[in-house]
Order: sequence, then C-alpha cells, then structure tokens
Amino acid sequence: MQDIDIATYLRTKKVLVDGALEEYFSNSHSFFKTMYYSVDGGKRIRPILAIASYEACGGQDIKSIIPVACGLELIHTYSLIHDDLPAMDNDDFRRGKASAHKRFSEAIAILSGDGLFAYAFELFSKGKEMRDEKLAVVHAVSEVVGPRGVVYGQVMDISDSQQPYPKILRSIHLNKTAKFIAVSIKVGAIMARAPEDKACTLYHAGICMGMLFQYTDDILDVIGEKGLLGKTPGKDQASGKVTAPAIYGIDGARFRAERYAALAKQKFARFGSQFNILVKITDFVLNRSY
Amino acid sequence: MQDIDIATYLRTKKVLVDGALEEYFSNSHSFFKTMYYSVDGGKRIRPILAIASYEACGGQDIKSIIPVACGLELIHTYSLIHDDLPAMDNDDFRRGKASAHKRFSEAIAILSGDGLFAYAFELFSKGKEMRDEKLAVVHAVSEVVGPRGVVYGQVMDISDSQQPYPKILRSIHLNKTAKFIAVSIKVGAIMARAPEDKACTLYHAGICMGMLFQYTDDILDVIGEKGLLGKTPGKDQASGKVTAPAIYGIDGARFRAERYAALAKQKFARFGSQFNILVKITDFVLNRSY
Repeated sequence: MQDIDIATYLRTKKVLVDGALEEYFSNSHSFFKTMYYSVDGGKRIRPILAIASYEACGGQDIKSIIPVACGLELIHTYSLIHDDLPAMDNDDFRRGKASAHKRFSEAIAILSGDGLFAYAFELFSKGKEMRDEKLAVVHAVSEVVGPRGVVYGQVMDISDSQQPYPKILRSIHLNKTAKFIAVSIKVGAIMARAPEDKACTLYHAGICMGMLFQYTDDILDVIGEKGLLGKTPGKDQASGKVTAPAIYGIDGARFRAERYAALAKQKFARFGSQFNILVKITDFVLNRSY
Repeated sequence: MQDIDIATYLRTKKVLVDGALEEYFSNSHSFFKTMYYSVDGGKRIRPILAIASYEACGGQDIKSIIPVACGLELIHTYSLIHDDLPAMDNDDFRRGKASAHKRFSEAIAILSGDGLFAYAFELFSKGKEMRDEKLAVVHAVSEVVGPRGVVYGQVMDISDSQQPYPKILRSIHLNKTAKFIAVSIKVGAIMARAPEDKACTLYHAGICMGMLFQYTDDILDVIGEKGLLGKTPGKDQASGKVTAPAIYGIDGARFRAERYAALAKQKFARFGSQFNILVKITDFVLNRSY
C-alpha cells in the first residue's frame, strides 16, 4: 500500500464505484435513466474516501462497503442537481455536460435529486448483514447532509445577507462540504467495525480534508479551466459569494489550504502506515486541478 | 378500543404527534423555524396510522413509535413543499397558509424540503434500542418514497404526456399516494415486532386505504371547500391532471372509493378486534370533507 501510485489507486477505485453505480441503475425504468444522467461522470471522491477508510481500518469485504460508498455519491449528486437549479446557483453546466434542469426540466431536476436522495438510503439499508453498522451509517449520514450540515451550508451560501467574514466562510465550508467529506471517511470506519473513538478521530481528520477540499474548490473557481473542472469557473466570484480567495486572496487561501492538508495528514498518520493512502489522497486534493 | 369515538381518537393522537414535532423543532436555529413553518398545520394522517398500527399490533412503548411516526410526517411535508413549487404544481396555498416558496423563496422552499427529508432519516435512526427494526423502517420507507414510489408518482403526475386511462390513473395513485400510506401502517407493525407476513398483509391493506385516500382527494378537488381543505381546490381539474373524477365521473369515483374502503376494512378486520381502529380510520377517510 505504501508505494501505491495515487493516480492508479484513484482510477482503480473509480472503476469499481462506476461499475457498481451502473449496476444500481441498470433497469429499464426510464426515470432511473434520467437520474443516471446526473450520476454519470463524477470524480467519485466521497465513495473512494469511504472505501479507502474501510480498507485502512482493516475491512476485508469490499462488497459490504460498496453500496454505502455509492449511496454517498447519490447524495452528492442530488445536492449538485439542486444547487444548480435556477432558483439557486443557476448553473447550466455540470460534470462536463448540461446540468439536469437544462437537459430535462426544472421539475424533473428537482425530482431527480429527490429520487437519488431516497435511493441512497435504500442502498444504505439493504441486506440482512451488519444491521447495526448500517443503521449507524444512516444516522451519521442523515445528520450531516440535512439542516445541520449540507442543506444548512447551502442556505448560508445562497443568502445574500452573508458578509465576507472568516467566521462565516468557515461555517459555510464546514456545513456545505467538510462534514460530508468527513462522514464519508467515518462510514468506512463504521462498516469496518473500527472502535468508536477511531471513527471519531477519522471524522475530525475528514473535517480538515473537507475544509482543504472547499479551499481548493474556491481557488479553482478563480484559476481553474472549464474543460478540466466540468463546471463553470468564475461563478462564485461573479455572484459575490463568500469564498476563501475573496477573503484571503489566492496566496492566503493557498496557505490555509496547505495548513488544513498538514493537519489532516498528521491525524491520518497517527493511525499507522495502513493510512498512507489517506495521506496521499490529501495531497492529491491539495494539488488537484479539477 | 371498540367503542372509541374516531374523532376523539384522531384528535388525541394528533396532539401527541404535534407535541413531538414541536419538540423536534424547538431549537433556536432559524432554519429549523423555517422548516417548521411548513410542518405546522397538517392532519397527521400518516403518523396516526403508524401509531394506530403499532398499538393494534400490540406495541406497548409509545415512545419508540413517535420518532418514526414524526419522520413520516416530515417526508410527507417535504413532498408537499416540492410538489407546490412553481416548476411543479405551482400552488400558492397549503395547510391553510402561503406555501413555502411564497412565504420564503423558491430556493428556501427547495432546501426546506431537502432538510426535512434528511431530518426524517435522522429521526428514524436515532437511539441505541431496536436497531434491527429501525433499519427495517429506513429500508421500507426509502423504497416507497423514492424513484419506485412517491417521486415516480409525481414524475408521472406532472408529465403532460399522460393519457386519462384507468391504468395510468392507477399507477399514479399507487406510486404517489398509496405506497406511502401503506408503509406508514407497515412501520407500525415493524416497530411492534409483528411477524413479517402480518406486516406484509397490513401493507396491502394500506395500499387499499391509500388508493381510497387518493380517490377522496381527487373528489374533494372537485367538490371540496378551500377553507376546509387548506389548499386550492379545482387545481387538478384545471391543470388537466389524470384524476378519478375525470375518468369515472364523481359517482364512478365515489363507487370505486367505497370499494377500496371495503377491501381495506376486510383486510384489517381479519386480524381481530384490536384492528377496529384502522377500520374506523378507513371509514373516516372515505367520508372526510378535508
């Protein structure tokens, strides 16, 4: 594991996740095809984090983490679809193609998001094995994607009353992005039956990685290329959103991103060499161009 | 139980549900207040069905069914908020007041729905007791509120390509309404640890009650009063939706509603007198004016 090439690792796991997602959507039902349009094409960061954490915690049965990992991707996709709506960020381009409301209609986009959200919980809870762990996954995820997490982060993000203060930036980043990244890592630990305090520490390492993730996202909104990003750069800046570069400048944001990366890596490294892959993913997030 | 007055029963259980909901939303967080605006004022049919089924199946600990029952109401509320959006049914009036997008904004309405959906699963999965049953609840509910149930029913409902054929009407009613009513009854059985086949039969009784519910809803859209309904009557008719009266006329719809009621009551009655309350609720639904 120590010498694994991170690009190869991410590619291999992405293939695994993509294959499973394809299977979960391989029925003849036309609305599943509609939902799959938006699911197709993601980087699969959250499911990969869940798998990496599961394996690092000693999980042996990849089949048990796959539905959980894919459920995270469905929730992420649902949040992107709803965020892109005209009433929200009004973004016509996502994952390298027309966003759902442009491809279909606003109504179908809203319902696609709703459908993916429900389907995620169906995936989390299916099967007779490991019921305690699955219920813990449902609880951990539902807690951070709702009104005390992702949804609230988006409420803050679209509020025009937000001022560019560091405290507000931190709260938006934490709720909108970091908690969900963190819980992706935590559910890997839960499904591997890691002790509760380990899952908790990993969650906090994930918070650092999630803050890092949103910092690099904000930076890429300023300096990124549309072709690589698969979404429209410059949107946050143009809409006057509270972003890291708006408060700290590009260099200040970069400096803080590096600090979050160092913190996350420090926490992962504490658990020994089997967590090297999470250290490497952290570096990948810091240096990503998409 | 046999001689209980149905109006008293419904009122007593509604007070219980309303009290619990108030508590679940009693924090100082402003977005919880926003979500609660839409939660407040419902008839609480689904949570009452869950509680009635729980008690009829011999469940003794009302505290264990309450969060589950309330979660159902949150999901119902989320679906109403999203259905009322301008991109969908465009309804400005709900539960006797301005619908969420009129009171707040489209963006906040979408996010309120999303937040309630997530919060419901948080309620389903909280606590250390009865984990197997709670996971079964999560699975049963997520299956019928997503792309094979409520969400798909709404997709069909808003599709302008729908023809007024009995088969299509049946599919819309089944997916949009009946499965969710049925699962409300089923989760009561699950939480009371009823045998699987009993929960399954109760689900099918619930399907009949749900079809009945939607038939009376369609009829009330034609003959109901706005003040009693708390929503705008005549909307379905005006928008050319596929409804029961549109296909069968009021009398034909009423005849079929009665048949569904008889079927539901027959199935409930098979389980003995402790299920009388569900027979009475069925009659209430058949004869409701709101």
